[in-house]
Amino acid sequence: MKAAGQGLIALLTDFGTRDWYVATLKGVILSRCPQARFVDITHEVPPQDVLAGAFTLAAACPWFPPGTTFLAIVDPGVGTSRALIAARAHGRYFVGPDNGLLALSLQQANHPQLIRLTKHRYWLTALSQTFHGRDILAPVAAHLAAGGAIARLGEPMVRLAPLALPPLRRERKRLRGAIVHIDTFGNAITNVRPAALPPQPRDVVFRYQQRKVRMVSSYADGRPNELIALVGSLGFVELAIRNGSAARTLHAKRGDSVEVVV
Amino acid sequence: MKAAGQGLIALLTDFGTRDWYVATLKGVILSRCPQARFVDITHEVPPQDVLAGAFTLAAACPWFPPGTTFLAIVDPGVGTSRALIAARAHGRYFVGPDNGLLALSLQQANHPQLIRLTKHRYWLTALSQTFHGRDILAPVAAHLAAGGAIARLGEPMVRLAPLALPPLRRERKRLRGAIVHIDTFGNAITNVRPAALPPQPRDVVFRYQQRKVRMVSSYADGRPNELIALVGSLGFVELAIRNGSAARTLHAKRGDSVEVVV
Amino acid sequence: MKAAGQGLIALLTDFGTRDWYVATLKGVILSRCPQARFVDITHEVPPQDVLAGAFTLAAACPWFPPGTTFLAIVDPGVGTSRALIAARAHGRYFVGPDNGLLALSLQQANHPQLIRLTKHRYWLTALSQTFHGRDILAPVAAHLAAGGAIARLGEPMVRLAPLALPPLRRERKRLRGAIVHIDTFGNAITNVRPAALPPQPRDVVFRYQQRKVRMVSSYADGRPNELIALVGSLGFVELAIRNGSAARTLHAKRGDSVEVVV
Repeated sequence: MKAAGQGLIALLTDFGTRDWYVATLKGVILSRCPQARFVDITHEVPPQDVLAGAFTLAAACPWFPPGTTFLAIVDPGVGTSRALIAARAHGRYFVGPDNGLLALSLQQANHPQLIRLTKHRYWLTALSQTFHGRDILAPVAAHLAAGGAIARLGEPMVRLAPLALPPLRRERKRLRGAIVHIDTFGNAITNVRPAALPPQPRDVVFRYQQRKVRMVSSYADGRPNELIALVGSLGFVELAIRNGSAARTLHAKRGDSVEVVV
Repeated sequence: MKAAGQGLIALLTDFGTRDWYVATLKGVILSRCPQARFVDITHEVPPQDVLAGAFTLAAACPWFPPGTTFLAIVDPGVGTSRALIAARAHGRYFVGPDNGLLALSLQQANHPQLIRLTKHRYWLTALSQTFHGRDILAPVAAHLAAGGAIARLGEPMVRLAPLALPPLRRERKRLRGAIVHIDTFGNAITNVRPAALPPQPRDVVFRYQQRKVRMVSSYADGRPNELIALVGSLGFVELAIRNGSAARTLHAKRGDSVEVVV
Repeated sequence: MKAAGQGLIALLTDFGTRDWYVATLKGVILSRCPQARFVDITHEVPPQDVLAGAFTLAAACPWFPPGTTFLAIVDPGVGTSRALIAARAHGRYFVGPDNGLLALSLQQANHPQLIRLTKHRYWLTALSQTFHGRDILAPVAAHLAAGGAIARLGEPMVRLAPLALPPLRRERKRLRGAIVHIDTFGNAITNVRPAALPPQPRDVVFRYQQRKVRMVSSYADGRPNELIALVGSLGFVELAIRNGSAARTLHAKRGDSVEVVV
């Protein structure tokens, strides 16, 4: 049976929309999969900002129907030995560099199928100047969008490269972390995961900008205008204000320090 | 019979294109209406600027085929009691907040069908954080794009909220108005409607920047480089230069005062 | 037989994405060709910059499938006597003003079919304000995308208006040219064509910013980080660094002088 998203390709890149980069990806895909349909998630990921790209992709992808192929390209390592991969999880397909960009989107899948792209026959033939997005990733996405088997594209892999988050620093009874992303609701997402916390939220003392923040279980537990901390949908502790923007209220920005007393 | 625009959804928002907002709307729609096709009118309406959104939507919508669904979201009142609505007029569908955003697009329709969205069964089920565009308006647009009946979506309404334009001020024999929008041709649209004017255009003395402007019936009545005033397609007096840009020539901007001697 | 790209329209304009211009083109096209699908190459060509538009279109178009219709509008001459044209080359269609915008895309075609648009019956009927993109070019593109014959659209033409490049200046044994475009790889494309050069690349002395640049046959001939000159895919000499950005490395910009000793 054809999945609702078959033929649908959602794109996320740092290419911008001024030049012909994105159009070239789409032209290559349409040449091989004429029935392809596109949704642009964004092409305005800050240049080479894998972290921002990973959070944006992970926030968008659950809303798309099964069968959708996500083509994600934020690739500061082009020209290095980083692999290019295809993955299948929750009935959706992902194509991109193995540099952490896909990690948040795939982390909650139970045994995603991971393939290192090695089969040249699915790529464009050699070109004068290399543009991996156009020459490898776009035709691979076209293959998947046309209903082709993922296993044919290369060799199975066991493990993805992780998303490079700043490390948590442990200082006596304190964990020092940082805000790593501000989402569209103004939630300030940190690099603190629940595994680093005591089992009972009420035992956690969470601090930001010298102020103690109450740790709760869900947004609904917040009082009006109260700054709260909770574990968000991507599995990180985030600072939030119910029905408000924590980031705007606090002038929070990426890199700001947060602290947990454990 | 299927209308030419069935399955076609034209979007206008103030969400920008950097984040995953717009993609989320499209993902939700495609999950419920896999055959949906999108045209982005713009996502760069100035934040919360209902007036600019209303003029842009009204200028774009007549060019789309019958059956098109317009999903428009510029919603400074989110969280207040403003209604969310669906409307049908001229064979086209409109979905958005009842805050004036749809008013200019619907004003020329003869008895548009207006529905206040109340039927939860057409919405996404409850989510941790509310995003009315994704949770209510997108699934409602998907229902209409898939050919579903508008009447099922809620309760009939009689009257839309009007677009909040700055008031005309009457000063003895003068009406003082303002430029409320500059369109892409450089026409400067005012808040003066013909009903406020004497019945014969030649009896109107229209002034802008101390200069007297000739009131004419159509663009073709303008002489080369002459600044003229006429009633435009949206039913407002506008300043124009035939085959030129009034706004650029005059450095006109939104908020500039205009005056009619009546 | 239906070409893979039939119904596919790729757009390139200088209209931006804030206003309703582009949506109006698409609405008009969909009203006449409901099965039309769109790819936006870019709408951010610098205003009225025919040169930038021509290079961007020529770089994008070879990647699209046969049958694709390219609708290109960068038209500083609107209102003058410049013609509007449709063209067919390599199984693809082009619609736009005859001002050089299409010249690079069509130059490598062997006898492209050129039609001056004169048949009003394929246009929108008269409107209060003229917008050639919407009123003439969009319905013509819809006709082609729907599989209509190009010959019906007007009269055959023999020759396109050329792209206006800055002239080469000959100074004794030197040719003085200029960088006319920086492409996305950072290659700096000049207005020097191979016909202006000696037949053997090794006899060419090419200079940029007081430095002598080696003229080679292909990118692969470049050593790591070496600045090279070669004839690029659009038929112009360009400055390049293999696997690097010549423009970024050299701070090269459009208008920079280059010199060839012949």
